[in-house]
Amino acid sequence: MEIPIGVLGLGAMGTGLARVLLGRAHPVTVWNRTPGKARELVAEGAILADTPADAVAAGELIVVSLTDYDAVEEVLGAVADAVPGKVVVNLTTGAPDRARRVADWARRAGADYLDGVVHAGPDQLGGPEATLFYSGSEPAFSAHRRTLEQLGTTHHLGPDAGLAGRYDLALLGLWYEAELAYLNALALVGGAGNPALDAFATFAGRQLGHVARAAAETARQVGERRYPRGPATLAEHAPVLEQLSRLRSAAGLHHTQLVHLHEVVRRRIDRGHGAEGLTGVIEELTVPIRPASAR
Amino acid sequence: MEIPIGVLGLGAMGTGLARVLLGRAHPVTVWNRTPGKARELVAEGAILADTPADAVAAGELIVVSLTDYDAVEEVLGAVADAVPGKVVVNLTTGAPDRARRVADWARRAGADYLDGVVHAGPDQLGGPEATLFYSGSEPAFSAHRRTLEQLGTTHHLGPDAGLAGRYDLALLGLWYEAELAYLNALALVGGAGNPALDAFATFAGRQLGHVARAAAETARQVGERRYPRGPATLAEHAPVLEQLSRLRSAAGLHHTQLVHLHEVVRRRIDRGHGAEGLTGVIEELTVPIRPASAR
Repeated sequence: MEIPIGVLGLGAMGTGLARVLLGRAHPVTVWNRTPGKARELVAEGAILADTPADAVAAGELIVVSLTDYDAVEEVLGAVADAVPGKVVVNLTTGAPDRARRVADWARRAGADYLDGVVHAGPDQLGGPEATLFYSGSEPAFSAHRRTLEQLGTTHHLGPDAGLAGRYDLALLGLWYEAELAYLNALALVGGAGNPALDAFATFAGRQLGHVARAAAETARQVGERRYPRGPATLAEHAPVLEQLSRLRSAAGLHHTQLVHLHEVVRRRIDRGHGAEGLTGVIEELTVPIRPASAR
Repeated sequence: MEIPIGVLGLGAMGTGLARVLLGRAHPVTVWNRTPGKARELVAEGAILADTPADAVAAGELIVVSLTDYDAVEEVLGAVADAVPGKVVVNLTTGAPDRARRVADWARRAGADYLDGVVHAGPDQLGGPEATLFYSGSEPAFSAHRRTLEQLGTTHHLGPDAGLAGRYDLALLGLWYEAELAYLNALALVGGAGNPALDAFATFAGRQLGHVARAAAETARQVGERRYPRGPATLAEHAPVLEQLSRLRSAAGLHHTQLVHLHEVVRRRIDRGHGAEGLTGVIEELTVPIRPASAR
């Protein structure tokens, strides 16, 4: 017999999660602010709870998928009496610091807490294409790993509840910045309305592939804070970046990213790292923020 | 019998080019400002010319690989009498507008002109890993394609002599921006000194792979100026970008690229394209430059 699940929130993602778990023979009790959204799931075998506390009481694992963390704190705040001994798995999207705050609340309330991120559309849930990151309670993850793996490819990133959200933001930002980098490149070769971009797309795909294939090695260098020269030294990169920025500017194209990279390369050279590789500029990417107490 | 080649400039790249052509049984006549650099090539069978004009006179195809376009214009200017009827292939790195200027000069001087870019180290030349782009005279490219293909994988991009340089700049900029995007992402998940970045590197590589795999489709949309919604509409992207920028800023991390992307997404939405996909922002990436005459 599969463990009973409570699901709070029946947006597209919550509905998808409930549906996969129902399909894997879990007793699933659902709650949503507007109960009409539960109709199809009830027809598929779900139980509709009148209150969030009822859904929590019926489940051993509580899946939370609400609009935002304000909604999460409001709904969980109202069910505090029902959560002791439960495992709360919050898949609502939000800021890493909010995830930590909910984790603190759950600890005080007597529940185990996992914060998670879904990389998938609702229709992909339950298949290997869906990737889910979790962070937070390691005992809770171990205990419910088999159930969580029914939702998709599953990773636990560490005990800090904010980690899953942080990975999510980093990967989302990477996608946006890589897209923008490619659009910048397309703009430089004639862009919109140019019908002869096939060859360029092939070369560009290869160029992105270089970065992707080096991702593990780059991460290793960053982890060890050792930055071998690679294809060129920072001293060799600097004039190329300066020329690229100038030419992009002359072409009327956006170039602040290259200017920024040139600046951090220069700063790194000034600190005596000119013979190292490009990866070392990560040491210059964090803008130091003075803690509030130091102000 | 392979056609005779003149090579002007024996830096690492010029020497590598001459060596591959010698190895493919071309008579190769070389010139360099400091003739000592030719010693090894002469031992391998090259003829050392006393003047650049002698090297040009001895070749049918003239390969130019000098420090920069200033050097190219100076050296070619001195051999104008020798170039009529020759094909000049200039593989010197530089700005696209300089390539056009040399092309104009060559036309006036009675030579055919190809501007090229080498994507390879000198040691890779002659193998399939070396990629060479050319632009400029199509008849010259067709006539000498077989010889040019001896240097590596070969592409002719079009009759505008500036195109090869433009592709080169675009691909180089793409590499730098994609690297920076990845370093930004690594910085967000704890970056320098964090030994547990393996899983992140895997996810990040996959994320870059999404952009690479979509490169041809993205280029097609750009070419046709049709921007279907894809994974999300601009109206859906806007709040995500705003949140990402805010969180990166709060973490003390560089975020101007996301702010810029958010701005162009907003501008595109304001112009009535909120239901389209992200690729359409390319229409907003070019900063209009008023022609000099309009000022």
